[in-house]
Amino acid sequence: MHQHGHNDPNAKKLYELIKDVKIAMMTTVDTDGTLHSRPMHSQETDEHGDLWFFTQIQSPKITEVSRDNEVNLAYSDPSSQTYVSVAGKAEIVRDKATIQEKWSEPLRAWFPEGVDDPQIALIRVHPSKGEYWDSPSSTIVHLYGY
Amino acid sequence: MHQHGHNDPNAKKLYELIKDVKIAMMTTVDTDGTLHSRPMHSQETDEHGDLWFFTQIQSPKITEVSRDNEVNLAYSDPSSQTYVSVAGKAEIVRDKATIQEKWSEPLRAWFPEGVDDPQIALIRVHPSKGEYWDSPSSTIVHLYGY
Ligand SMILES: Cc1cc2nc3c(=O)[nH]c(=O)nc-3n(C[C@H](O)[C@H](O)[C@H](O)COP(=O)(O)O)c2cc1C
Repeated sequence: MHQHGHNDPNAKKLYELIKDVKIAMMTTVDTDGTLHSRPMHSQETDEHGDLWFFTQIQSPKITEVSRDNEVNLAYSDPSSQTYVSVAGKAEIVRDKATIQEKWSEPLRAWFPEGVDDPQIALIRVHPSKGEYWDSPSSTIVHLYGY
Repeated sequence: MHQHGHNDPNAKKLYELIKDVKIAMMTTVDTDGTLHSRPMHSQETDEHGDLWFFTQIQSPKITEVSRDNEVNLAYSDPSSQTYVSVAGKAEIVRDKATIQEKWSEPLRAWFPEGVDDPQIALIRVHPSKGEYWDSPSSTIVHLYGY
C-alpha cells in the first residue's frame, strides 16, 4: 500500500506505533563502513513528522552522522508484535531555543547541567520512507512521497 | 569492556540475549543509499557464532545484500529492556544440505513447499562487532577480534 505525506492514515498509524514503542534502534554508517546501531529514546514527533533524539555531542554517533547522514530507526517490540522501520536523514541541532523546547526533566539523568550542559545536542531525523508490520501484512508508507 | 572471540563470557551473554529476543531488525543498504530495515526471525546460531535467517530469494533484501553485504542486526525488546546490536557481513546460502539442516516445520507457513520451495534461501550473517545494553552500562563485544 502506498501513501504520500505524513498526514495519511497509514502514516498516522506508523507514528502511533512509534509512540508506543518509544525506543528506537538507530542505525548509522560507522567510519569503517559497518552498520552501527544503539537504543535511543524518542522525543515527541514534531508537526512536520520529524523525529527527535537527545544525545552527547562527543558521541561516536555524532561523528558517524556528520560523515554520512543516512540513518534507520527500527522500533521493535516483540511482546506486542510491533515492528516499524523508518529511513531518513539525520541533522545535528544545537540551537538553544530548540533544546529548551524539547527539554524535559527526566533528561537530567543524562545531562545533569540541564539545557546548559556543554555536551547537549539533538539529532533530528527527517523521514523519507517508513514501513510497519502488523502481521501478517506489512504496510509501506512514503512519508514524504520521495 | 573489550573481549575477543565469540567464546568469551560477554559474547556468550550477547548470544543469550539474542536467543531471548529472537526477532532481529535487519538493516541493509538500499539501492538508493537509504538504510532499510525489517523484522526477521533468527534461526539457531551455529558453532562459529554466525546468525542465520530464512528468506525468499526474490525479496528486496537479497538484492540489497548482493550489492552491499554490510548489515546490522538490532534485537530490541523494551518490555525486558534488552538491546543488542550486531554488525556483520551477510552471505546468501542456497545449498540444499544446509537448508535441510536449518529447516523446521513452522517455516512451512512461509514456504508451503518446504525445503524444495524454489524461493527458499538463507542469509548467513558473520558478525564482526556486537554490543548489548543492560542498563545503565553498555558492553561492547568484539566477536571476531577485528
Ligand atoms: C533504553 C535506552 C535508551 C537510550 N536512550 C538514549 C538517548 O536518548 N540518547 C543517547 O544519546 N543515548 C541513549 N542511550 C545510550 C545509547 O544507546 C548509547 O549507548 C550511547 O548514546 C552511545 O552511543 P554511540 O557510542 O553509538 O554514540 C540509551 C540506552 C538505552 C539502553
